[in-house]
Parts: sequence; structure tokens; C-alpha cells
Amino acid sequence: MESLTSSKPGELALLDWIRARAAREPGPALRLGIGDDCALLRMRRGEELAVTTDLSIAGRHFRLDWHTPEVIGHRTLARGLSDLAAMGARPAAAFLSLGLPRDLVQSPKGRGHSHQTWIARFLEGFLALADKYRTPLAGGDLAESPIPVADIVLTGAVRRGKALLRSGARPGHLLYVTGCLGGAAAGLAQLEQLANALQRSKGARPTRPPRPPQPPPIPGKLRTLLAPHLFPAPRVAQGLWLVRHSLATAAIDLSDGLSTDLTHLCEESGVAAEVDAAMLPIHPAATQAQALHGGEDYELLFTAPPSTRVPRSIAGVPVASIGRILRPLPDTPLVTMVTKRGLRPLAPKGWQHYS
Amino acid sequence: MESLTSSKPGELALLDWIRARAAREPGPALRLGIGDDCALLRMRRGEELAVTTDLSIAGRHFRLDWHTPEVIGHRTLARGLSDLAAMGARPAAAFLSLGLPRDLVQSPKGRGHSHQTWIARFLEGFLALADKYRTPLAGGDLAESPIPVADIVLTGAVRRGKALLRSGARPGHLLYVTGCLGGAAAGLAQLEQLANALQRSKGARPTRPPRPPQPPPIPGKLRTLLAPHLFPAPRVAQGLWLVRHSLATAAIDLSDGLSTDLTHLCEESGVAAEVDAAMLPIHPAATQAQALHGGEDYELLFTAPPSTRVPRSIAGVPVASIGRILRPLPDTPLVTMVTKRGLRPLAPKGWQHYS
Repeated sequence: MESLTSSKPGELALLDWIRARAAREPGPALRLGIGDDCALLRMRRGEELAVTTDLSIAGRHFRLDWHTPEVIGHRTLARGLSDLAAMGARPAAAFLSLGLPRDLVQSPKGRGHSHQTWIARFLEGFLALADKYRTPLAGGDLAESPIPVADIVLTGAVRRGKALLRSGARPGHLLYVTGCLGGAAAGLAQLEQLANALQRSKGARPTRPPRPPQPPPIPGKLRTLLAPHLFPAPRVAQGLWLVRHSLATAAIDLSDGLSTDLTHLCEESGVAAEVDAAMLPIHPAATQAQALHGGEDYELLFTAPPSTRVPRSIAGVPVASIGRILRPLPDTPLVTMVTKRGLRPLAPKGWQHYS
Repeated sequence: MESLTSSKPGELALLDWIRARAAREPGPALRLGIGDDCALLRMRRGEELAVTTDLSIAGRHFRLDWHTPEVIGHRTLARGLSDLAAMGARPAAAFLSLGLPRDLVQSPKGRGHSHQTWIARFLEGFLALADKYRTPLAGGDLAESPIPVADIVLTGAVRRGKALLRSGARPGHLLYVTGCLGGAAAGLAQLEQLANALQRSKGARPTRPPRPPQPPPIPGKLRTLLAPHLFPAPRVAQGLWLVRHSLATAAIDLSDGLSTDLTHLCEESGVAAEVDAAMLPIHPAATQAQALHGGEDYELLFTAPPSTRVPRSIAGVPVASIGRILRPLPDTPLVTMVTKRGLRPLAPKGWQHYS
């Protein structure tokens, strides 16, 4: 973890800037942040530490010609915060490992660090979200890489034995989801259209592509539509609420898509599940397929016993009952969906690695 | 952190294998490992958690045509363990984010997972070292990437207020180093020669380069010489010993090279330092320049008051006194070296990012 404290001439201004900027909100759990071989965290008595890591790779999780640096910074951190939310943990500190090509670190004129460099704008997006969730940037690493990569590590605190696990769902429990589904996938589809249209218009008069590539400007009327994709809001407050009220028996965040994440939850709990298609809170701009398989909505999927009174909204976000947990049967799909035309299997068709 | 628990068809066998293999040594601090949105760690009363991340990128920190998968796995974990050692922390759990091209994950025949895949051999090297240091693999992420990248996160436990920091050195303290210096750089130079010789011999009869590239076989007589580079031993036991005996006032691990890491320590402590060239424990195969600037030796550099009796070896590794801490003076180099020809500045010439 030396890099963020390094004092080599070329990086000095940048690393000083990161350190100064990161120190703004030390946070109660963080005893020692950037500047040593390790950061030091201190838990309160009776607390456990939750740890999660998520790797984002250019061309796979983001695109320089689709996403602004601020968007990529926001989305990188949101992925990690959402994992904490799914456990009901309070964010303690974030760690960021960044591998970047030289031209994303140096200022366009090649003279030292500027606040207009790609990395500075990435960190602005990252730290704006970090501030909002009171999550100090406590360390990380920085290395030259031919392609941009960002690994986010989130640590969080949760009362011993109170974390929401994937493994607690039991037959008879009801299935709930926060917010609405498919908005991120619908936004991504819109963004792709926009970027392709820009590409075509440029194709008419060939010019050298800019370095780094420039994402398309988002017209004002599209901003709301693209927000679930560009600036997802991790459900940290909702996860904390569920723990505080001992209400959920199991939880997972919807990062890969409902069909895939519900399959994960069923596998870890050793149960099956049935989703009621008519109950799905589908985003107004999304198709049913986007709501089922889209991924990156970062809503929480959780279960609760039927006797539990689950409120219609938690910390300002609506909650919908979408199905129930069943006993798994041999030769029967783990997840099924009730539709007007009857029961059909709901195979995990969300985010696929190496697909 | 979904990926290591994912159940998509192509990865199923591999991820099950990682999970089963990782679960072998749960460790006292790890309450919940791979399989949920986060891992859960539990500290003992009066303990703090140390956290460090280190990003390794192909072509920058390792080369597929120089290093076997087992070596890259070992070196990836050793970097993180060494940061814990520098704080005097006991390893609690490791997290690994891997971005790999498809051909390093799939078996040569393209049919599911085999223990002979690059990733399986990488994990063997990684987990062999993890077992040795009783460090469970508690989570991580896996994603497709055009170039191999590995981000290692280490967590460790240390008694509150007892961690060895970079910032505790004071004028008058003496400077110590474990083991000997330059061995890793000397080994790397040998490996480069070996790989280049192999390349030249192949150049004579051009063939299609193998995928993934094959590192050169290491002749038996070279194995000892290359060991400090290929299989560095993090000084975890020595760091723990220093904390237990409240002996060191400051510490840092030698990852970037003595000249650079001593500069870091001086900056964080607000002091200067003087190294005595005659006292340096130079590796028998290394030059003085390799010992001063080589990096990746992963020895510990620490300071102690002159009144402290520092033993000649700690947990089986020799300790040498190599200089002293001074008051910083304006217009004077932070680090200087006493040589037969007098005093000369020792500028940080170790590992440079973006150089």
C-alpha cells in the first residue's frame, strides 16, 4: 500500500491531493488512514467487520467512450457499498486499487498533476459518493496499467451475529425487493444508442479519436432516464434499517440481476423460490426482461417470515412483496415465476463472467 | 463479491474448487468466508484491524513469459503479507480480486475447469503461502480482463496502539534491517538473462509462441539464487516479535528498495537518516546498487532507541544495524550514506510508478 503515500516527483502532487482530499472525513472506525503500510480500523465492542471486494475492468464493467470519469468513480464505489448494504453493515472505510494508463494520470500537457486529469475527475465522482455515505478513503494502490482497472474494497461494521446473510431463507418466508427493477439496464440501453449515434455521426467525417475517449454528452431530458445506470444509489440505509428491526431472514443485493441473484440466495439457503410476475416493481422505462435479468440496479432482495409486518417503504424507498420461498424439489427449477399463462422456470440469465 | 460464489455453468467447477480449497483453514478471526456479499471478521477485545491492498499488473509486476503461475500467486500474496509484517500485525484473512483473460481460466481443451489451468496453478502458489502463514482466503472477485491483474487485500490483527508505524522514528534512534538486501534484484537480473537466452534460441527457429506464454525452466543450480525473487518470505514473525517486545519505534517493509522506503519513513517521521555503507548486509550475489535500490526484498527496516538491546537475529533471521536517524536540516538531503570517500546523498532510486 505504498503507492498512495509515494513521493516520486511525477506523482507527488496527485498523491498529496488524494491524501488531503481523503482525510476530509476520517470517520469513527478509522484510526490511521493513507500514509503507512496498512490502515488501522477500530471496531466498537460487540461489532464484526464486513469486507467485500469488487473488480471493475474497462470494456467489461465500464467504457471510457460511454462513461465520464465521475460516473466510473461513482459506480466503482457504489458496487462495494451495495455489498455492505446487503449485509446491513455501516460503512467504515474504503480502499481503492487503481491501475491506469499514463494518459489518464498525467495532465494533457504532460506537466504534473491537474484537477482536470481523468484520475482527478474519477476521484471527484468517487469521493462525492464516499462523502455522502460517510465512508473515508483509507488506502489503496496506484499502478501503471495498459487498460484501466479499479478494485474497490469496502469495510463495514455490523453488530455480532446480526449481519443479513444469503443463507437464512426458509420455506414459507416471503420475498421482498426495494425500489424498482430494470432501470439500470434500460438506462444502459439508452446510453449505448446515444454513443452509437455519436459514433456514426463522427464516422461521416473521420478524425483521430480523442485520448482519452470522450463519452457522449447526455441531453437534459435523458438525464433522469440514465440516472439509475450512471449514478446508482446503494441501499445502505435500508440494510441498516433491516438489521435494526431484526426483520429480514436473508438478503442479497441485486448486482447481477434478479434471476441470478435470487438463484444465489436459494443456493446458499438450500431453498427454492417462486416470483409472481404481476407483483414485480418494473421501472417505467424498462421491459420485464430487463427487470428480471438486467443487473446493476443495486436494490436489496430480502426475505421475511409471513408473520412479519414489512412496511411499504424503508428509509424513503418503496418495498414490494414479489414472491415466496419454497422447499426445493428434485428435478424442479430452483426459481420459478408465476405468470398469467402459468408457472415457468426463471433461469439465471443475469450478468455472466467469461460469457 | 458475488463472483467467487457464482454458479454460472462455465465457472461452476472452478469456483466450487476455490471455495472448497479456501475453506481448509478458516482461522480464528474469520466468522464467514466465501459465499455471501461480504466476509465477516471478528477481532479479539483490544485489537485493531490492519488493512492493506496491493495491485499487481502483468508486464509491470510480473510477466507470463518469465514467471510460472505458482510464482505469481506466491508473489501476489507475499506483497500483502509483507505490509502486515511491517505493522507487526497477525494475518487474519486475505481477499483476492483476479482479472484474467479467458485462456488463463479455461482448460487447454476448453472443457470446464482443470487443475492444470493457469488460474488453478496460480491459486496453488497463492494458497501454499497462505497455508504457511495461516491466512484464510476469505473472498474476492473474478472478472474477464484482456490482461492479467491481481489485487491482493490483507487484513490483520494488532493490539490497540501497538502497531509499528512509519511515523515513530526520532533523531538519535538507530536504523536496523532484517535479512540481506539486493537478493531479489540479483535474482530478477538472472531470470531476465535466462528468459532472453531462451528467446534467442527460439528466435533461430521461429514457432508460434505458446498461449499462455511459457516461462523458462530454472536450472537446479540457479534455484537458490533466484529464490529471493521468485519466492520472497514476508517477515511476519519478525514484525510480531517486534510488537511483542515493544522494541521498534518505527518500521516499513522494503518493497520499493531501501533508498525509496527509507525516504518514506523519514518523510512520515519528519526526520533525516544516515546509512553506513560498510554495515549494509548485501546479498552475496548482489551489487551495492541492487541492495540500495533493488526493491522486492520484503525485509523489514525499523528503528529503535540507542538504549535498546536489539538481538542479532529475530525468529531465525539476522538483524543488522545499518545507520541512524538524524534531525532534518534545510538544504540537506533527507537520506545520506557514509562511504569510504565521505558522505553522499542517497536519493530514492527504487521502484518508480509511471516511470
